[in-house]
Amino acid sequence: MSGEPDVLDEVPPELVRRVEEALAEDRSEELRGLLGGLSAVGQASILEQLSEPERDQLVTITKGELDPETLIELDEEVLESVLDQLDSKDIAAAARELETDDAASILEELRDEERQEVLAELPAAERAEIESALAYPEGTAGRLMQRSLVKVPDSWAVGEVIDHCREATDLPDDVYDIFVVDAGGRLRGSVPLGRMLRTKRPVPIVNIVDPDIRSVPATADQAEVAHLFRDHNLVSCPVVDSRGRLEGVIMVDDVVDVIDEEAEEDLLKMGGVGHDDMYASPVRTARLRMVWLTVNLATAVLASLVIGQFEHSIEKLVALAVLMPIVASMGGNAGTQTVTVAVRALATGQLTAANALRFVAKEAAVGGLNGFLFAFVMGAAVVAWYGDWRLGAVIAAAMVCNLIAAALAGTLIPLGLQKFGIDPAVSSTVFLTTVTDVIGFCAFLGLATIFLL
Amino acid sequence: MSGEPDVLDEVPPELVRRVEEALAEDRSEELRGLLGGLSAVGQASILEQLSEPERDQLVTITKGELDPETLIELDEEVLESVLDQLDSKDIAAAARELETDDAASILEELRDEERQEVLAELPAAERAEIESALAYPEGTAGRLMQRSLVKVPDSWAVGEVIDHCREATDLPDDVYDIFVVDAGGRLRGSVPLGRMLRTKRPVPIVNIVDPDIRSVPATADQAEVAHLFRDHNLVSCPVVDSRGRLEGVIMVDDVVDVIDEEAEEDLLKMGGVGHDDMYASPVRTARLRMVWLTVNLATAVLASLVIGQFEHSIEKLVALAVLMPIVASMGGNAGTQTVTVAVRALATGQLTAANALRFVAKEAAVGGLNGFLFAFVMGAAVVAWYGDWRLGAVIAAAMVCNLIAAALAGTLIPLGLQKFGIDPAVSSTVFLTTVTDVIGFCAFLGLATIFLL
Repeated sequence: MSGEPDVLDEVPPELVRRVEEALAEDRSEELRGLLGGLSAVGQASILEQLSEPERDQLVTITKGELDPETLIELDEEVLESVLDQLDSKDIAAAARELETDDAASILEELRDEERQEVLAELPAAERAEIESALAYPEGTAGRLMQRSLVKVPDSWAVGEVIDHCREATDLPDDVYDIFVVDAGGRLRGSVPLGRMLRTKRPVPIVNIVDPDIRSVPATADQAEVAHLFRDHNLVSCPVVDSRGRLEGVIMVDDVVDVIDEEAEEDLLKMGGVGHDDMYASPVRTARLRMVWLTVNLATAVLASLVIGQFEHSIEKLVALAVLMPIVASMGGNAGTQTVTVAVRALATGQLTAANALRFVAKEAAVGGLNGFLFAFVMGAAVVAWYGDWRLGAVIAAAMVCNLIAAALAGTLIPLGLQKFGIDPAVSSTVFLTTVTDVIGFCAFLGLATIFLL
Repeated sequence: MSGEPDVLDEVPPELVRRVEEALAEDRSEELRGLLGGLSAVGQASILEQLSEPERDQLVTITKGELDPETLIELDEEVLESVLDQLDSKDIAAAARELETDDAASILEELRDEERQEVLAELPAAERAEIESALAYPEGTAGRLMQRSLVKVPDSWAVGEVIDHCREATDLPDDVYDIFVVDAGGRLRGSVPLGRMLRTKRPVPIVNIVDPDIRSVPATADQAEVAHLFRDHNLVSCPVVDSRGRLEGVIMVDDVVDVIDEEAEEDLLKMGGVGHDDMYASPVRTARLRMVWLTVNLATAVLASLVIGQFEHSIEKLVALAVLMPIVASMGGNAGTQTVTVAVRALATGQLTAANALRFVAKEAAVGGLNGFLFAFVMGAAVVAWYGDWRLGAVIAAAMVCNLIAAALAGTLIPLGLQKFGIDPAVSSTVFLTTVTDVIGFCAFLGLATIFLL
């Protein structure tokens, strides 16, 4: 995301430096004051920007000043190291302040034994809620939802609902919809608070209910939930169990985090980073990235084997070795452009079986157009450079071949991976560069061997 | 984003095929029925998946059935072609149904003359609202906000506010907060609807107002607005003019679209595609991507010039030509991993002046670790392949150099670009591969020239 993040206003680098100095000199009072004045996001930002020993020290000193919300704002790696500094009483106290879904996501980071200790510190009702949230796997609607909501029977009138809201003191501020259920607890629909307020008291609540609101099953994937919110501009969405009974509600602010995470994941995957590793140790980061580099090494060796087939040609005409990376690199870059558009279009549902053929044809046309253009430019440059028009013609022909191959590979690879249920974001690029390297080197060195030697 | 988009349930490929068949045989009634049963998102998805002539035909036939919301769900390129098929009366009718911000974004796609025609069709009040929205540039808070909101004077009691809400029939359903202003129209704070409902009628509204709510100036960049919503889990945020007077309100669903757009932009930029071009014509797409390919060609030629310096070495030992792409490619990929993490961390504000040095040091350590690992693997492979331990040692040394160089370039380039106000997402990769190609070829061919020949 471009633009200056707002949190920078709250946590300028000078503030981080003041915290570091206070830590170095162990000035506890000052540290409590510095952290106490920040929002949860600000506190999280400070903790993330410190080194691990500094962070441990800061958490130990300022435990009492930490906003419970800070925990949910932290990067996962940093959260783990902060939780290590807190005992089960501290964590339980924070969990009590948080929404069920947020508390569950914190507790999930703990080892089983420690989690049981924290749960034991909680009142029975909250323990039960958190345990039932933890029963749903991470990344499902059941985990994302909160359980506090306004649920009224379909037999009530508007006046009764309003009185109910007025009397319930434990209702959260962020209630936007009233949910109406039948005698069996099954969801009948929802009423936006604003509409209820504009309706006369004796009107039965069922008269103003939206019966065809969208709900999601508790087992739904969070990415699907995010799509639903986005496609239908929802602010909240009820979650139901397998029998249609209302279980909880997902709020849009939780979905914003999901959308953000999913977009981040795609970006990281396309860049060959499987997992956000900003705060991991160097050894852990190196290990996380090793897999991808190993795959890339295999690809590069394959390309070398292709070049090895043309050793004699290169010995006779060393200019081939000088020029061959250009053809491969242009193919790789043109193909990456195509793959990027294809991966994004598949993820957003814009690229489907219905228009796949048209997309492939269009990309092939684009590859051909740019292929001919850059073939001309590069051919002319080579003629000027080496004074050999045949060498220019060979590189031009290889360029056209490789850019069209890049377009075809750039569309067919992600489409094929998607069809076989493999995430195209994570693996398209490596297959693509294999194709563009092999075809780039083959076409250029092969044509040169045939026509120049 | 991974996972199956929800809209696929509503628009399966069979449905697109049925629409295409009905279009081919000009069965207007059937087409109206097919489109009429879909949500706005579904209608948009159908229009996007058709070819341009089919789309034009469908719009002409089903104008009356098109949900006005469909227009705002369409991709920009597709929207332009749909608007071409509608006359100013049709567009004005749609604009009347839409929120001001959405109507403005549609009208912006029109030529000046046509926009004036559409505005002339609208009632004066709506025309004035849309014109004042258009006065703010695209991508600002002023353009994103809607003007319909509940604004009450700070002298009222809760009962008066409730009565006001009950009497105002034109209030939208999606009112979640009441905004309180002073006699000068300046924002004093907000009251969530749920809280108001739980308060006794005689209580002055100022007693329950949140005075320190966040507001944004109408000129704020939409990316900053998105950060604010995300960091503080907002559902709505008031927009004020330069004197603090309440102008409108931004709702979270509009921000979800912004977050999505910004994430998409970063992904596309990193892939060398500046602009979403899925629906552009081949010629337009080819032109959009040409700039990036030209930059890449320059880089590739630079790398070739480096290789050209070592022509004699390659002539003597053709294995160098075979192996050199491996060193360059590993550097490029390792560097891309680093750049991806750096660009994302800069965008989210996790990478700042306070921890930049630690980040660079960590990435250098990761580069060194993976450098030595792959140096060992590749060195051993070359010894096995060519039976020459000196060649193996040279490629190993070059690999370590290039992976450390990739780590340094992968961190310092995005940090430097950000410092000079250049978007690191768009240009980091090209600078990076220049560095890894040049250093990769130089290190490998240079060391080989010194130690092997």
